[in-house]
Amino acid sequence: MANNTITSPKGFLAAGLSSGVKRSGKPDIGVIVCLGGAKAAAVFTTNKVFAAPVSICKKHVKSGKVFAAVVNSGNANACTGTKGFNDAIEMCSTTARLIGCDPHHVLIASTGIIGEPMPIAKVTRGIKKAFEKTSDSAKAGLDFARAMMTTDTRPKQAATTFKISGKDVTIAATAKGAGMIGPNMATTICVITTDVAISKPLLAKALKEAIGQSLNRLTVDGHQSTNDTAMILASGAAENRPITSQCPRYKKFAKELREICCDLAKQMALDAEGATRMFTVTVNGAATKTDAAKAARAVADYDLVKCAIHGADPNWGRIVCAVGSCGVKLNPEKLSCKIGDITVFRNGQPTKFDAKKASKIIAKKEHTITINLGTGKATDFCYGCDLSKDYVTINADYHT
Amino acid sequence: MANNTITSPKGFLAAGLSSGVKRSGKPDIGVIVCLGGAKAAAVFTTNKVFAAPVSICKKHVKSGKVFAAVVNSGNANACTGTKGFNDAIEMCSTTARLIGCDPHHVLIASTGIIGEPMPIAKVTRGIKKAFEKTSDSAKAGLDFARAMMTTDTRPKQAATTFKISGKDVTIAATAKGAGMIGPNMATTICVITTDVAISKPLLAKALKEAIGQSLNRLTVDGHQSTNDTAMILASGAAENRPITSQCPRYKKFAKELREICCDLAKQMALDAEGATRMFTVTVNGAATKTDAAKAARAVADYDLVKCAIHGADPNWGRIVCAVGSCGVKLNPEKLSCKIGDITVFRNGQPTKFDAKKASKIIAKKEHTITINLGTGKATDFCYGCDLSKDYVTINADYHT
Repeated sequence: MANNTITSPKGFLAAGLSSGVKRSGKPDIGVIVCLGGAKAAAVFTTNKVFAAPVSICKKHVKSGKVFAAVVNSGNANACTGTKGFNDAIEMCSTTARLIGCDPHHVLIASTGIIGEPMPIAKVTRGIKKAFEKTSDSAKAGLDFARAMMTTDTRPKQAATTFKISGKDVTIAATAKGAGMIGPNMATTICVITTDVAISKPLLAKALKEAIGQSLNRLTVDGHQSTNDTAMILASGAAENRPITSQCPRYKKFAKELREICCDLAKQMALDAEGATRMFTVTVNGAATKTDAAKAARAVADYDLVKCAIHGADPNWGRIVCAVGSCGVKLNPEKLSCKIGDITVFRNGQPTKFDAKKASKIIAKKEHTITINLGTGKATDFCYGCDLSKDYVTINADYHT
Repeated sequence: MANNTITSPKGFLAAGLSSGVKRSGKPDIGVIVCLGGAKAAAVFTTNKVFAAPVSICKKHVKSGKVFAAVVNSGNANACTGTKGFNDAIEMCSTTARLIGCDPHHVLIASTGIIGEPMPIAKVTRGIKKAFEKTSDSAKAGLDFARAMMTTDTRPKQAATTFKISGKDVTIAATAKGAGMIGPNMATTICVITTDVAISKPLLAKALKEAIGQSLNRLTVDGHQSTNDTAMILASGAAENRPITSQCPRYKKFAKELREICCDLAKQMALDAEGATRMFTVTVNGAATKTDAAKAARAVADYDLVKCAIHGADPNWGRIVCAVGSCGVKLNPEKLSCKIGDITVFRNGQPTKFDAKKASKIIAKKEHTITINLGTGKATDFCYGCDLSKDYVTINADYHT
């Protein structure tokens, strides 16, 4: 099988298995190892209440080299006080002993229930077992992707190979996240591997920009978790001439990274809790880019819009209402709205349009809502998904 | 039957009936008449996209006297362009001709679907029919309350009688609203009648403060409609010594008005779209009152909290997560949370608590979530309700 998993870039081993943190027995521990040492960068939640592994990972990502990353699902190790902090350190120490490195060279991320103590003995055993199984196979990469999942119904993976200075460079990524997904940061757990040779500051810059234009433009319920982490590990094993400036090679890498992340963001929208379809809100004619982004997000976050899309209902009044209430500058006499290519509201006046045709557009897996604020030239976008009864079912019953 | 409707204060007649705007044949036009002329005040949506009747009503409420108010449901007359504006004027003119006053002395409000042209011929006939039926009976007041309803399952009414300078003064109020209910203003349509004698500026002040502490502290889905209007009409027929300063009589009136509005806000929470229960979020220990209000609202608006409450699930991690992500100042080492009287998180550490007992508290019709941010002494609150599958059903199918 072709490898589109995080083991496809050269220099990485992975594994994923069940350690018993999840009562269901589903996989809940994943490890990635880069024995040659990888340059690393990461972006994190900006929630003021953040999990212990986030505070540890923030520190460790500053190390010159990272030899391993450990991700567990089933328990977020958030709001867990002093014990939680010690448990997160313990996860790094266990991993470091297995590799023979300092704990500072290990990254971690946790996802799952907030506020429950980490069953650290199980996690420690799980990490040890996972290390015995590490491999560069596609199966190992897929096992890792599965081990990150919580309410996700399927793993999200994307990979690409392209040339940089005559060498094949690969980027591969996996992300988890189906609920508690909002804007303002990485949103979710995302692990990216690449074999590109690049300086650490440029790796960090490329990651920040790619996440900003992809996962950071996705909202499921406007919620920002306590655990959001997106990390990238670069092994350098592609042996390209190292990227050390914002040259065309950097731009190529950054573009490929952004596209991989957008691919993941769309996969996440389509697998969001209860979602049956996704949509992109594009806002044009804004006074500022901030306004454009704010309006796009307001529409994508608006429960009534999400319900209408679930019902394939071209109820554009709710879209306009969302735009009007989000605090951005707009010209009511120029305000316009399109569903797909159908103009439903033009210059502040309703149009006569074919509601059945509009309904068919909405009923597709993906469609675009375009809004013009009529006040300027700035533009931005946001991905969203519909709101179904299943979102409620999943989230009313998740804890117990 | 005891009259707790808007016809209970002296000086008011009302009626409500079906004009055919709603295809269901349910009541959709309500009128209130104060033949003696009433002092009036109102507060409106701050949504930048607001309906034609809002812009008209804003102007008309400045008149010295108001002789009638007309409210229709089934069509919001919002985003309806020039025709919508003319239709709103037409509603006032029709009413004014029936009374024999200037159209400026008539208030209007509309609620219902956004973006569809108003069937103005039906509305005009409806207003005329309603005028023939006006009465000061309790039935007439109830008919008016029913005529404002959209997805509400029951009318919301509250009334109180108390003494001011030895005279009986009555306040009665009705409100509609079950979805698209968010903060930042009147939120919903609310009509209040009273027979108190009071100056117009003090009436306006009392209304603004009462709404600020009641309807403005309620969120169903965080959405602010294009049509929010809360109006109060004061006939002066109680013949109390007129209130013209912020004296103890004013304070008494203002307090009674606030309590009536809080009563309505709670009724609305319990009848919110799909809601099965309500809750109050109280935030203490905030650095500022703005922070306290923002945090309370963030929790009440958080879909995952609302789903957990629907499932009677004491998933307090989501509460803390909501607080952390809303941008207020907090001290993670002092942050605490209670469900009812059970402390579930204290000084940044989880507690051992009886989950079954907590679940029973949540399963009640009303409960309180108390958060301490650990940074100051300010406090505020917000009302919220659970999120159920029925919210989705109602809103996926409302338009079509």
